[in-house]
Amino acid sequence: MPLTQNSIPEPTLRRLPWYLAYVKLLEQRGETHISSTRIAHDIALDASMVAKDLSYINIQGRTRVGYDVCDLIAILESFLGFTRHHRAILFGVGSLGGALLQDSGLKQFGLDIVAAYDIKYELEGMIINNIPIHHIDNFPALQDKMHVPIGVITVPVDKAQNVADLMVENGIKAIWNFTPFRIHVPHDIVVQNTSIYAHLAVMFNRLGQ
Amino acid sequence: MPLTQNSIPEPTLRRLPWYLAYVKLLEQRGETHISSTRIAHDIALDASMVAKDLSYINIQGRTRVGYDVCDLIAILESFLGFTRHHRAILFGVGSLGGALLQDSGLKQFGLDIVAAYDIKYELEGMIINNIPIHHIDNFPALQDKMHVPIGVITVPVDKAQNVADLMVENGIKAIWNFTPFRIHVPHDIVVQNTSIYAHLAVMFNRLGQ
Repeated sequence: MPLTQNSIPEPTLRRLPWYLAYVKLLEQRGETHISSTRIAHDIALDASMVAKDLSYINIQGRTRVGYDVCDLIAILESFLGFTRHHRAILFGVGSLGGALLQDSGLKQFGLDIVAAYDIKYELEGMIINNIPIHHIDNFPALQDKMHVPIGVITVPVDKAQNVADLMVENGIKAIWNFTPFRIHVPHDIVVQNTSIYAHLAVMFNRLGQ
Repeated sequence: MPLTQNSIPEPTLRRLPWYLAYVKLLEQRGETHISSTRIAHDIALDASMVAKDLSYINIQGRTRVGYDVCDLIAILESFLGFTRHHRAILFGVGSLGGALLQDSGLKQFGLDIVAAYDIKYELEGMIINNIPIHHIDNFPALQDKMHVPIGVITVPVDKAQNVADLMVENGIKAIWNFTPFRIHVPHDIVVQNTSIYAHLAVMFNRLGQ
């Protein structure tokens, strides 16, 4: 029986890309089959957790042989949404925002940033990595034509909530928030928080520095 | 009684930067005191969790008045290691690696990338954002002089383990791994995994696309 998409736990969704990366590596090495037990062993995770995670995707392994490597890759990529194009806009072409515009890896994983917005007039009209930069004042009119579903926030912390509000008012359905500010949005808006600097805090602490 | 640094749970360490970002915003607005209950309310978290998280840092709030905003900022920044300089090297000056070199936010949060390495000879001698790029072959000799403690991995997935091995052999103590590959390292090496593309998977899934 198929599960609704929302029933998949977030930790599972975050681990599935690890399995995908590993299985792609096996494919490069010419391997054709893989068991969940071996995936678990090779990436140092609990075997029952890997088996449980893979039970959410629609693939059948064969006893003693395991999963077909090519099938597993195709199904994982499709399941994770990496094979489709998801249009996005980005707000805040500063240091991190500019960096994300440059990162072609995002497109490979299905995120297609089609426009960027900034408050600085001097950035207007610039093009980074084929992505045009507009002044923020032009957002409502452009969004009214483009109906982009995803917004990426890389503005300074004190502007994060204002930008989130503006996005929601103009029909954005999912927000990828790179600021450490916890934005408030209506319940039907998807928010994914990625504060890379918070990971630094963990590393510094564990390093005892 | 002071806790040892390793006893602080990782989820707490990841949330403390949220509180810091929020309290800095209050400071900008001229507010002088804040209670953990209000932090919890304003960033939509459970009040007992915020109080528990803040109990790990050495600060005393006053009944009815709460924490002094300036003190809380200073103590959080220091506790999280953001006020110190942590030298790092980066391996893999591709799309994401080049983007991170450009991101001056890392330096503001205490990570000082002092050199970058790549396998491409044509990148050797280039300088990005004041950071010199060397060929990977020069790493052991340079590291022998510089003793940099932190290594950032932004190489392709199939090179992640080799680079991690090379880092560990040359005295790197903490690895910030941006690839979705789960690297194997000795137990005393700190690893922080930041796969931004895994966050995309969660967002796509929740968006139902």
